[in-house]
Amino acid sequence: MKTETVNKILAGNVQAASRLIRGIEDETPAAIAELKNIYPHTGKAHIVGLTGAPGVGKSTLIDALIAALRKRNRTVGVVAVDPTSPFSGGAILGDRVRMQQHCVDREVFIRSMANRGWAGGLARATISAVHVMDAMGKDIILVETVGAGQSEVDIARVADTAVVILSPISGDEMQMIKAGIMEIADIFVVNKADKEGANTIASAIQFMLEMKPCPPPKWKPTILLTEAVFNKGIEPLVDEITRHRQYLADSGELEKRRKERAKLELIEAIESSVKSYVLQEVASDLEKLVDDITRRKVDPYTAALEIINKFSRQLKPDAE
Amino acid sequence: MKTETVNKILAGNVQAASRLIRGIEDETPAAIAELKNIYPHTGKAHIVGLTGAPGVGKSTLIDALIAALRKRNRTVGVVAVDPTSPFSGGAILGDRVRMQQHCVDREVFIRSMANRGWAGGLARATISAVHVMDAMGKDIILVETVGAGQSEVDIARVADTAVVILSPISGDEMQMIKAGIMEIADIFVVNKADKEGANTIASAIQFMLEMKPCPPPKWKPTILLTEAVFNKGIEPLVDEITRHRQYLADSGELEKRRKERAKLELIEAIESSVKSYVLQEVASDLEKLVDDITRRKVDPYTAALEIINKFSRQLKPDAE
Repeated sequence: MKTETVNKILAGNVQAASRLIRGIEDETPAAIAELKNIYPHTGKAHIVGLTGAPGVGKSTLIDALIAALRKRNRTVGVVAVDPTSPFSGGAILGDRVRMQQHCVDREVFIRSMANRGWAGGLARATISAVHVMDAMGKDIILVETVGAGQSEVDIARVADTAVVILSPISGDEMQMIKAGIMEIADIFVVNKADKEGANTIASAIQFMLEMKPCPPPKWKPTILLTEAVFNKGIEPLVDEITRHRQYLADSGELEKRRKERAKLELIEAIESSVKSYVLQEVASDLEKLVDDITRRKVDPYTAALEIINKFSRQLKPDAE
Repeated sequence: MKTETVNKILAGNVQAASRLIRGIEDETPAAIAELKNIYPHTGKAHIVGLTGAPGVGKSTLIDALIAALRKRNRTVGVVAVDPTSPFSGGAILGDRVRMQQHCVDREVFIRSMANRGWAGGLARATISAVHVMDAMGKDIILVETVGAGQSEVDIARVADTAVVILSPISGDEMQMIKAGIMEIADIFVVNKADKEGANTIASAIQFMLEMKPCPPPKWKPTILLTEAVFNKGIEPLVDEITRHRQYLADSGELEKRRKERAKLELIEAIESSVKSYVLQEVASDLEKLVDDITRRKVDPYTAALEIINKFSRQLKPDAE
């Protein structure tokens, strides 16, 4: 259905898009309905996930990437997945300010996920924000994640191209390379390449890549050195991101990744609907069950099973 | 039911406990069954969550904490929630090695969550590992999380006492203080307090705490300075952790937190069971639906709703 909101978003209207993304975060039924309406208009953008621990210079790199992409006349969306303070309405200390230079550019749309619902739903809200920017006609959508938790890996699965950013050891402590996140990388960036230790990090990644299981993957991740703060190495990164997109299309991997993403979205939607459905059904029993669990009269697994069995008996009334 | 495994775990047997935790990670039905059996024997340990970004010195601090707790004759369990490489079987670069000095101490039990199933389930596996250590009779269980993602906040909700660890700015970039994580803290630790900037961090936290909404919370989080690597400030931290445990018991907050945890566990168990149940029911339709979503013939929300409606119609056959 082409509602007024849909038409505005398809025309690239920033206010309508912002309002819809806010609605998605608040999980209003109206926003979910609009999401359905924009869905047919999505699937065109190149979605690039950028993951790295705090301090590697993600924001600076994304800042430089936006400028480089704009020089190539590509429109850009940015979804920053980052917790913000519920009482200040923003990160307390942060370097997001620098990114505001792009605010005046109509072809750049940046949104930070306010992430009010800590207990999950973030991956879903992020994917939805990506859909909104996709429908707006952004050519490339950058999704920035912190990359030290688990949810980031799921979010990375949403991307067509996953860029993992590292930086040389800063301070006295060894930076941990998280294998699970390393595994999802299509492109590695060692930022702050002017700092001591950059080559060590690059060698460590190289070593890891050579340990990859047989058969060797069709796409061999490249390791790029950047100095985002001096705008060095950014053009090769844009080239490599473009090359990966071409590889995805040529190899049939794009279709495969998008199917995986569709499956993830479907399962998320089922899960969330079923959960709220079941919680409504058992709402009256819930407090008593929680009490029983707290007093160790029953364990959570048995309590859950009881609910499921009740559920499944109702599903098959003739089996009684 | 007091199976052989349960008896062994209650007697503190490390091999039986390790085997069960491994089984939980692999989600074997046998492990889930044993979890039910140990559940009645849990609820005694003091669960302390320790959260901080990579590089703040968490492992060193935990290392020092273990030594201090052992000096007070307390038995200790540690659950380190940290991704490990599926091909190397361990963190590639890490400082977990130092903690191995406690390996020879029978009263210290340390487990790192191998975290094979990235797509969720980590919180559940972590809680389960805590239950195992609790049943083993550990007095205090330290849960170490990275604290930059979302799942960490959920895991922190599992703790009786949440300790948030920060450190002075290292390198050229401002360290971001994640408000969402700040909010859950019962105790703040500024580690590496000998480094420049420690007082700035402490002041920033103090400032944030003064912005807390009215009415003021009953427990006022303390800010402690430590130099874990020099074993400085550790005794006051142990004292503060103990004082918080006493506050929880006296104020009735312990009961409240444990009910919340029980609720979280019940909902997680329902969610996971219902999800697998539904996915079995729709398995035959799933591939077709995913294809339709990928081709934008249908959106995931509508597809999910169809499944739920089918489900709900089956639930209420007389409503047809």
